[in-house]
Amino acid sequence: MNVVIVGLGEMGASLACDLRKNPQIKLIGVDRDVASLAYARKTSLVDQTSQDLAEVATQADLIILATPVESIEQMIEQLGQLDLKTTVIITDAGSTKRAIMAQAQQFLLPKGITFIGGHAMAGSHLAGVQAAQMGMYRHAPYFLMPADEQAASRVDNLKVILAPTGANFITMSVDEHDDLMAVVSDNPHVIAFALMNSSVNDLGKSQDFGQYVAGGFKDMTRIAASDPQLWSDILLSNQGAILNNLTSFRQALDQFQRAIEDSDEETLLQLISRAQISRQNLLIKRENND
Amino acid sequence: MNVVIVGLGEMGASLACDLRKNPQIKLIGVDRDVASLAYARKTSLVDQTSQDLAEVATQADLIILATPVESIEQMIEQLGQLDLKTTVIITDAGSTKRAIMAQAQQFLLPKGITFIGGHAMAGSHLAGVQAAQMGMYRHAPYFLMPADEQAASRVDNLKVILAPTGANFITMSVDEHDDLMAVVSDNPHVIAFALMNSSVNDLGKSQDFGQYVAGGFKDMTRIAASDPQLWSDILLSNQGAILNNLTSFRQALDQFQRAIEDSDEETLLQLISRAQISRQNLLIKRENND
Repeated sequence: MNVVIVGLGEMGASLACDLRKNPQIKLIGVDRDVASLAYARKTSLVDQTSQDLAEVATQADLIILATPVESIEQMIEQLGQLDLKTTVIITDAGSTKRAIMAQAQQFLLPKGITFIGGHAMAGSHLAGVQAAQMGMYRHAPYFLMPADEQAASRVDNLKVILAPTGANFITMSVDEHDDLMAVVSDNPHVIAFALMNSSVNDLGKSQDFGQYVAGGFKDMTRIAASDPQLWSDILLSNQGAILNNLTSFRQALDQFQRAIEDSDEETLLQLISRAQISRQNLLIKRENND
Repeated sequence: MNVVIVGLGEMGASLACDLRKNPQIKLIGVDRDVASLAYARKTSLVDQTSQDLAEVATQADLIILATPVESIEQMIEQLGQLDLKTTVIITDAGSTKRAIMAQAQQFLLPKGITFIGGHAMAGSHLAGVQAAQMGMYRHAPYFLMPADEQAASRVDNLKVILAPTGANFITMSVDEHDDLMAVVSDNPHVIAFALMNSSVNDLGKSQDFGQYVAGGFKDMTRIAASDPQLWSDILLSNQGAILNNLTSFRQALDQFQRAIEDSDEETLLQLISRAQISRQNLLIKRENND
């Protein structure tokens, strides 16, 4: 079986490390960067490399697009124009899904090509082929979003091929995925950014008050150091779900504010207890992976 | 020199571990719990133990009150009625300071007794004498709040005695301390509680959506698992500063909300970049301790 991975960055190269474990898979790495391809060959990360997707796509049984979102969109259009195997599965690794699914709708589905959107919640702050890490996806949530019924019927095929990652595969619709991301990822970033900014407004430069903070503040603001362009793109690509969840967060915050204003200890105890129990239960099923 | 530590819980017992390093100090441990005192003697954590503060307080050169806040308040009243050494320094380890400082004002200052409020941002989720840990205070912010000018003139004496902790001592007023805590500790807790509660409102039980979350959400909600009674007490003891900072946080959140609503990428990039740089600078001076 021929698996083409486009983009040998941290996500794609780590996927290659895991898929190596299956001797039935021939791995073909595609990247614009010659040095990355040379490194991938030298370290036997893949069996074959190419700078040109068109050159290798037609032999592929599975094509994994693991580049930035804009580039994924362009490649979907390009792939729609090639003479691919009728049984090929195309998937991606983009963290925002709506635009990518729209491209698949326009360029792949009319030609009967199977597209299953993918989004794994894994990765570090590192980048590039040298950040490749075997087991990076282990136990990580890995969302699969089939573009149509035909794609839905082939999700199990994709899971079997990706099984060496050890990821926790979850199939859902794009809308469900985007609503979920608003709550568990997008808004936590917005809140961390806002907390960092308001703290600086109140206390002055962070290099001056940093000596006064403990683990709680550091944890709460860790993701505030995320990449501005990436997160601006993500937040603008999921506006509706984010704004809905922000309203919900503000309501929860209002409850605390009123209880503090009213010195209402009973309500405060209830609100904090609810949060405490929910947080304690959050990791019950996967305690060992925290 | 006789140092009395009242309360051999995690904070007091860990302090004892560090003060042991100074052979000039005779450590006297006071606790209501007989088993804790027996453990402290058996492990040579202290040189002498007592269940009765009054019995050992009059010989003390330094008294460290490391019990829950309410009990600290009661002991300050009790100490004001004893015939202490004129040179004694009394300090505490309570995380909320206003009520404690008011007690010192009422019962100690009129008798010329030196009181220096203390608050170390250290500790784990563990409790009790067996959680004692040498070096627990190392590099931790340790706030010292002298109750009057006489106390201010003796802060350096206290720092010399506590030096074996390796803590990062910072002298400030109670008001400065409470404003700072609102920003770096109290409101981060409120936000974590609210985020946990709104996520459950939007997604249902946490044991069901826990499998979908990544490190960012876990970090942002870790302190939401904090003790309800402790945090209800803290939030209600620092209402003014917390409500001020909540307003500031909401303004920062509003800026993000407007930029997302308006698809204003330029503003969003600026807001996120400001947060990113501030977070990167937060740990510049103490990177090694993160």
